[in-house]
Amino acid sequence: TQNYRITLLPGDGIGPEIMAIAVDVLNLVGKQLDLSFTFTEAAIGGSAIDATGEPLPSETLKQCQDSDAVLLAAIGGYKWDNLPRHQRPETGLLGLRAGLDLFANLRPATILPQLVDASSLKREVVEGVDIMVVRELTGGIYFGQPKGIFETETGEKRGVNTMAYTESEIDRIGRVAFEIARKRQGKLCSVDKANVLDVSQLWRDRITQLAQEYSDVELSHLYVDNAAMQLVRWPKQFDTIVTGNLFGDILSDAAAMLTGSIGMLPSASLGASGPGLFEPVHGSAPDIAGQDKANPIAQVLSAAMMLRYGLDQPEAATKIEQAVLQVLDAGYRTGDIMSEGMKLVGCRQMGDALLEAL
Amino acid sequence: TQNYRITLLPGDGIGPEIMAIAVDVLNLVGKQLDLSFTFTEAAIGGSAIDATGEPLPSETLKQCQDSDAVLLAAIGGYKWDNLPRHQRPETGLLGLRAGLDLFANLRPATILPQLVDASSLKREVVEGVDIMVVRELTGGIYFGQPKGIFETETGEKRGVNTMAYTESEIDRIGRVAFEIARKRQGKLCSVDKANVLDVSQLWRDRITQLAQEYSDVELSHLYVDNAAMQLVRWPKQFDTIVTGNLFGDILSDAAAMLTGSIGMLPSASLGASGPGLFEPVHGSAPDIAGQDKANPIAQVLSAAMMLRYGLDQPEAATKIEQAVLQVLDAGYRTGDIMSEGMKLVGCRQMGDALLEAL
Ligand SMILES: CC(C)[C@H](C(=O)O)[C@@H](O)C(=O)O
Ligand SMILES: CC(C)[C@H](C(=O)O)[C@@H](O)C(=O)O
Repeated sequence: TQNYRITLLPGDGIGPEIMAIAVDVLNLVGKQLDLSFTFTEAAIGGSAIDATGEPLPSETLKQCQDSDAVLLAAIGGYKWDNLPRHQRPETGLLGLRAGLDLFANLRPATILPQLVDASSLKREVVEGVDIMVVRELTGGIYFGQPKGIFETETGEKRGVNTMAYTESEIDRIGRVAFEIARKRQGKLCSVDKANVLDVSQLWRDRITQLAQEYSDVELSHLYVDNAAMQLVRWPKQFDTIVTGNLFGDILSDAAAMLTGSIGMLPSASLGASGPGLFEPVHGSAPDIAGQDKANPIAQVLSAAMMLRYGLDQPEAATKIEQAVLQVLDAGYRTGDIMSEGMKLVGCRQMGDALLEAL
Repeated sequence: TQNYRITLLPGDGIGPEIMAIAVDVLNLVGKQLDLSFTFTEAAIGGSAIDATGEPLPSETLKQCQDSDAVLLAAIGGYKWDNLPRHQRPETGLLGLRAGLDLFANLRPATILPQLVDASSLKREVVEGVDIMVVRELTGGIYFGQPKGIFETETGEKRGVNTMAYTESEIDRIGRVAFEIARKRQGKLCSVDKANVLDVSQLWRDRITQLAQEYSDVELSHLYVDNAAMQLVRWPKQFDTIVTGNLFGDILSDAAAMLTGSIGMLPSASLGASGPGLFEPVHGSAPDIAGQDKANPIAQVLSAAMMLRYGLDQPEAATKIEQAVLQVLDAGYRTGDIMSEGMKLVGCRQMGDALLEAL
């Protein structure tokens, strides 16, 4: 039996509810495929602030570093929105990304045939959309120095952040993206703002140069404003997208919302080595927390991504993904993806249906 | 007779064709309302590079400064895409914005009932959408220092841009936005990334403080990633949006594309005093240039915005806007907005229909 040490970070809001489902699913699939998981919980985000005063206690980071993979649910909530920056839940997440050196964020936006009508876009526009956004996650304006609020000579305040990338930072995310595009439809679109930004010019130059090593991948470039338009106009033109931290934040969310069902979307954050971090795209939904209303599917699919990209267990990942399709085919729906004629279920019931399908 | 000195910047691609229509429309409306226009052409963008080596010759800037308003068509094209940055068409446009101190960019995204079906979004999602994006245009990461490509200690290159705003820069765009929201539905949504960026934190603090002076306007805040999602999910929730230069670039284009017909959308760029700049949202479309296929309506509506926001002639503006609705009602469509049962016309014919309607 192969054993994996998994750190669980349930976080805030609906986090604990959906995490419980993912754990059950992992345990069952593990039993079937002779894998076993040792789960250890740790605190992050708002609940960590409440318990320790810090959004990422150092024991949490250490425990994550010592594990084979990290499964996160969701962080944040109104309650912590007005704390100073170093005490915000988001700061804990950024610290975790940096602490594990998770420079590659994979955000799939896939429309499942069962849920096409959940989209705000016309059926013919979104049917079959399958986009993978590869977002750089430990550089760019999220981490660039100098940053802060400074006083100018005239005595007024000036807020400053720095968007910066070095050649090696661009190359390593570029390679990840080319490799992924190669395993998908072989099309990679790099997004930047090279007509205005120097950092984007360097980005474009390096990605263009890297392309020589991946002659089987068709590379194109778009400016970020145009990319936002094209995602709305005709998303099927995209296969794999690679971009920096900030543009990736915006475009991956726009792409996710094309599906109309972000309660379905997982994500993976990977480093060069060491444990990866796997989490749903959606937030902590404090308004429905503790009411057994949350959709656990993005969390369960994050566990599948963990198996595929973090633990190299593609068979187990596929089993989970197929179970998700089966319960959708059987008509089970949580409130966020409910439509006429389907069976409305709660978080726990959806979990039971998944276990049943497995 | 009130006389106005207008600098025309036809620019590149389809620019001259659509500009010709706007001039005819202005002349006719002028005759009807006892206004007269003295038009002077100047060079900008690719055609200026070809003629003088520079995308914004100093005579062009001077002439713009000496006029009552500037009407621009479109700049750029494949031909100039690989020149060094200081010789790019876009650099000319940025220079013009800075040179005229045009800090407030107004970008309406309105769905006309006649063109609802051009949208990639469902009818019920976009019907009635009427958003005004107020984008800061002379600050932020477009102009922040330091910027460039530098060498690091280890000898590799590092691309750098700086996103910065001072309190007074935030206040002046904030005031414009509150004033505009007040004249519209009274709802203002400020977009930033305050959960990560210091510059956004200052932005949010100042906008929040300004709101005290505009108690009749309902202020909300969104993070930029969420704003991109919400535009796709349910755009009718928005009335007026205010945001920085880069976020405004991305979101105003996304909002524009919700309409499915960016050949219809004008924009205005205003300073504290001095001439404003009025231009379509769409680009120079080099692929159809010179073929009498371009849609001149965005250019004509830009002339209307010039009358309304630049020359304080709202009556003339309204006349033009109504003529546009009339020709659409009569079924005239250029190729980009063509649909079944409508009359396909070229750029010139569309212009004639507009003159007729006037
Ligand atoms: C919570 C926030 C810091 C985070 C980000 O901006 O990266 C989130 O939006 C995301 O995309 O994971
Ligand atoms: C052409 C480019 C420099 C410009 C910008 O980024 O501002 C354009 O995209 C726009 O939105 O007007």
